[in-house]
Amino acid sequence: MGLKLHGSALSTCTARVATAIYEKGQEFELVPVNLVTGEHKQPGFLAKNPFGQIPALEDGDLTLFESRAIASYVAEKYKDSGCDLIRHNNLKEAAFVKVWSEVESQTFHPVISAIVHQYLILPLLGQQTDQAVIDANLEKLKKILDVYESRLKNSKYLAGDFFSLADLNHFPYIFYFMRSPWTSVVNDRPHVKAWWEDISSRSSFKKVAEGMALGQK
Amino acid sequence: MGLKLHGSALSTCTARVATAIYEKGQEFELVPVNLVTGEHKQPGFLAKNPFGQIPALEDGDLTLFESRAIASYVAEKYKDSGCDLIRHNNLKEAAFVKVWSEVESQTFHPVISAIVHQYLILPLLGQQTDQAVIDANLEKLKKILDVYESRLKNSKYLAGDFFSLADLNHFPYIFYFMRSPWTSVVNDRPHVKAWWEDISSRSSFKKVAEGMALGQK
Repeated sequence: MGLKLHGSALSTCTARVATAIYEKGQEFELVPVNLVTGEHKQPGFLAKNPFGQIPALEDGDLTLFESRAIASYVAEKYKDSGCDLIRHNNLKEAAFVKVWSEVESQTFHPVISAIVHQYLILPLLGQQTDQAVIDANLEKLKKILDVYESRLKNSKYLAGDFFSLADLNHFPYIFYFMRSPWTSVVNDRPHVKAWWEDISSRSSFKKVAEGMALGQK
Repeated sequence: MGLKLHGSALSTCTARVATAIYEKGQEFELVPVNLVTGEHKQPGFLAKNPFGQIPALEDGDLTLFESRAIASYVAEKYKDSGCDLIRHNNLKEAAFVKVWSEVESQTFHPVISAIVHQYLILPLLGQQTDQAVIDANLEKLKKILDVYESRLKNSKYLAGDFFSLADLNHFPYIFYFMRSPWTSVVNDRPHVKAWWEDISSRSSFKKVAEGMALGQK
């Protein structure tokens, strides 16, 4: 029985999980959840995730939700195939994967997701973008990426000189952010720019990015 | 060389790490960081955490930050002593620890921390509490805890019938929340109430709670 990923190819969180699965050399069946009709708030999907958010992963009799948890589960389950996303044989390297994964979750994500939400999502819902929210978060993002710039001067990837879940978790929101008018926030920081070009050229990302059509010109 | 925890006994995030260390039967030296004088934004501390937030953990030559990452590192390093917080021998149980840890991080934390910030922190800084922010987040918290109530009807703890990092990560903010006037949000939900009474009676928590003096009557 293969992996079933309930979500949407357009969704950042679905993309995070899909990328992790591809990095491990695995395949999955995408089971589309129709957000427009509110399918994610209906009993069928709520039985998979009681918080009504995509994605959810079915792996045999196991049903999981929360994209970072699913990605981490996939990295653990298939730890010996594909790229070792969690450095499971090295306690110190694994610790830095945890640290920079939490930086993504707690510090980076709230800021970049606010920008992407304002710029890409609200117009789709026929709602007004609030430029003040975007501007405030752009200022925060610049400060965060200044720290990333220093970090990436000293190591090729966030957790060390190896690609890991910490980098992977950043992919979907930066991908959509790079369709905004504010790409200089990334491109003006040479090590951040080089890191982004490196990770976004991975075959797992390219495969997932094909479906991420929001904001496409 | 023992563990050095740079932080403050008053701080929720320091408390999270301290609890994890005690759960593993380990000890640590608390190295106080003076938030009032802005020590966490000075070069000495920024070398430990470039984002300038407490806590940071020194373990020999390893320096880590982000409380959930540190707690997870401690759980992994000492996986065979004390309470097994990550269910490291059971892929499925470990997966649910990840899922409910992410629920805490992504769904529960932004809401309860907004309330605690308004109610306990802002007055300390001489700033005005915004009741509208509290009210909006109380409504969100009720909905979140409705899901917890359903979950805890079917399992004793969040990730299953075992105490784990997923429960532990909730402790510091609920602890301070229970000093607010809105404790009925927890107490009106019998399974959430029983869960809270259970986890907050653990000796690790009691030891850490002694130092959590904000809002004490």
